[in-house]
Amino acid sequence: VKIAILGVGLIGGSIGLAAKRDAGVRVSGYDPDPEAGERALARGAIDAREETIAEAVKDADVVFAAAPIGWLSTIVIEALDAAGPDCVVSDVGSTKLVLAQLASDERFIGGHPLAGAETAGVAHARADLFAGATWYLTPTQGTSGVLYERLHRLLVSFGAQPTAVAAQLHDRLMACFSHFPHVLANLLVEQGSARAQELSSGERLPAAGPSFRDATRVAGANTAIWRDIYIFNRLALIDEIDGMVERLEGFRELLLDDDGDAQVASDAERIAAWNDRARQQRGALLGAGLAGETGGEPVHELRASVPNQPGVVADIALALGGAGVNILDMALSPSPDNSQGVVALWLRGDTAVGRAQQLIQDLGFPVARA
Amino acid sequence: VKIAILGVGLIGGSIGLAAKRDAGVRVSGYDPDPEAGERALARGAIDAREETIAEAVKDADVVFAAAPIGWLSTIVIEALDAAGPDCVVSDVGSTKLVLAQLASDERFIGGHPLAGAETAGVAHARADLFAGATWYLTPTQGTSGVLYERLHRLLVSFGAQPTAVAAQLHDRLMACFSHFPHVLANLLVEQGSARAQELSSGERLPAAGPSFRDATRVAGANTAIWRDIYIFNRLALIDEIDGMVERLEGFRELLLDDDGDAQVASDAERIAAWNDRARQQRGALLGAGLAGETGGEPVHELRASVPNQPGVVADIALALGGAGVNILDMALSPSPDNSQGVVALWLRGDTAVGRAQQLIQDLGFPVARA
Repeated sequence: VKIAILGVGLIGGSIGLAAKRDAGVRVSGYDPDPEAGERALARGAIDAREETIAEAVKDADVVFAAAPIGWLSTIVIEALDAAGPDCVVSDVGSTKLVLAQLASDERFIGGHPLAGAETAGVAHARADLFAGATWYLTPTQGTSGVLYERLHRLLVSFGAQPTAVAAQLHDRLMACFSHFPHVLANLLVEQGSARAQELSSGERLPAAGPSFRDATRVAGANTAIWRDIYIFNRLALIDEIDGMVERLEGFRELLLDDDGDAQVASDAERIAAWNDRARQQRGALLGAGLAGETGGEPVHELRASVPNQPGVVADIALALGGAGVNILDMALSPSPDNSQGVVALWLRGDTAVGRAQQLIQDLGFPVARA
Repeated sequence: VKIAILGVGLIGGSIGLAAKRDAGVRVSGYDPDPEAGERALARGAIDAREETIAEAVKDADVVFAAAPIGWLSTIVIEALDAAGPDCVVSDVGSTKLVLAQLASDERFIGGHPLAGAETAGVAHARADLFAGATWYLTPTQGTSGVLYERLHRLLVSFGAQPTAVAAQLHDRLMACFSHFPHVLANLLVEQGSARAQELSSGERLPAAGPSFRDATRVAGANTAIWRDIYIFNRLALIDEIDGMVERLEGFRELLLDDDGDAQVASDAERIAAWNDRARQQRGALLGAGLAGETGGEPVHELRASVPNQPGVVADIALALGGAGVNILDMALSPSPDNSQGVVALWLRGDTAVGRAQQLIQDLGFPVARA
């Protein structure tokens, strides 16, 4: 097995280290910055440094493009041109829709590991960076099932939890739960800074409280990464902005609507209910990260018979991903005449298995426990 | 010395414990809930539990009203009615302007210690709750200098750092750096919750990232406290809401303004600059909490001659507070004929002393190092 990594920083380097833990995997690397490539070589993250994308990709089974979002489309398209017909090309960018539209190819599967945002550079790379991390994959109807399976199994061997999601849904979820919180943090800092100047005659800034500190922790995150995230996910961000403007104006009305004592009392109740609801909703949202996990329960195997055609594996992965069922591992076995195949899935817990079985049946495929 | 505490929960109880560390201080307590009063007595936070505000306040030198904001004005006005002419009445509410307007009396000085938001009840009270904490005081032109000095010295004995600020300015600063971040956290949760339902067909909530978790840490804070904060600081909050709506719409325009490649490049630069600026501004804002502190430097005494009339001490305290000069301790000495007086101030560090000297001179008072 040969893996090519295009861009050997923190994520690319960690992919190399994770892949090399498994015996027999060769890792070639390319980086536009020769020094970065040499550091990755010295660090043992790659076995060979190549001078071009084409050379790195030659004979590769799996290619990872691990560059800032703004460069990804160029790199991925060049990699697809150079890669063989049986090579899967993926990337690790934080937005997925624009690239998915540009790189429409059965060999391309967008990816996004939720790991490693705080530091940069191959010096911080670790073989276990992805242990336990969700790794979003964005297959489409055109995606090769065989290549999806290969990528999925490789990510599982890294210790990651591959989760299929449509590219557009990925970008909207990320906008709401990551990108827009970054925007708000920046704007809150901007507002606090302006207010401090306005109110304290420039001599003394007020001591910012812990709520302000927490709310702005991610303000001004790494510009090289976040500038591109804001640009590439602008449409989903605009939805979040519009939603927040509407909510701010709704709360403003609630605050202002105070004519008459009775009305004030009723507003106080509405404000209290609004605040209580926020506490409950936050609990539900943050608890949700654990909803798919049922550690300690046994792993079961499901086997589904499927036609050997593009999109089938993507359909199954998307259905299970959408229902919160984690695929611990998967395997494809074609029938002798190649017209049919069996997809084997390993899942944890009876609930997950039952849910998956139902979803696969709903897709029209015979399925049973092994 | 006798101190009366009206409302013996976490803050009231901690005031009692801190005051009782000093020998010779008697502490009487009143609470509308007799059981809370008994607990405070058992805890040693008060020496006597009284059945009415008037009884608790009788013969007191200092009164602290430590109740939820919605009850404070009733309690403070009743305390002022019952208290003697030489008794200072203060409170510990998180908003100051409404109460300051209602309780216009030379004996009333609004207060707000920045401590103890996470827990409630006298069970959590501690003598050192205020150690090192900023304790905002909101004197006015009508405030008695003698009573301000007494309150200031008492708070210093608690280990707190009294800082004078005008009530309106206090509320605007709190709105920006504490209350509005709470509103935003609630609204972000509300939006995330709605989006999760919309996008995940109700079966699986997406794993909320660490940026969302941090940005919403204070969502749904204690409703009994925060409902009143939102209501009593509504005008300042509306300014913050309007400011944020404008900033969100400004950023929206920046994201959308993408006709032509050259323009995109220039937007990317503007987005990058915006993000870099947020990082710098946050550093400046959070560093500011330390700006007034110059630990290790020697303490100096400044002595100012002032006319013995209301508002003078407030003027000095406000001028120094506004410039970030912390008054470590202060003392008033009236002249024999009571027409003049000397204000002694203890300050840390040459820079602070020089700054204070200049500010007091600017107010028209002769001042010198002792």
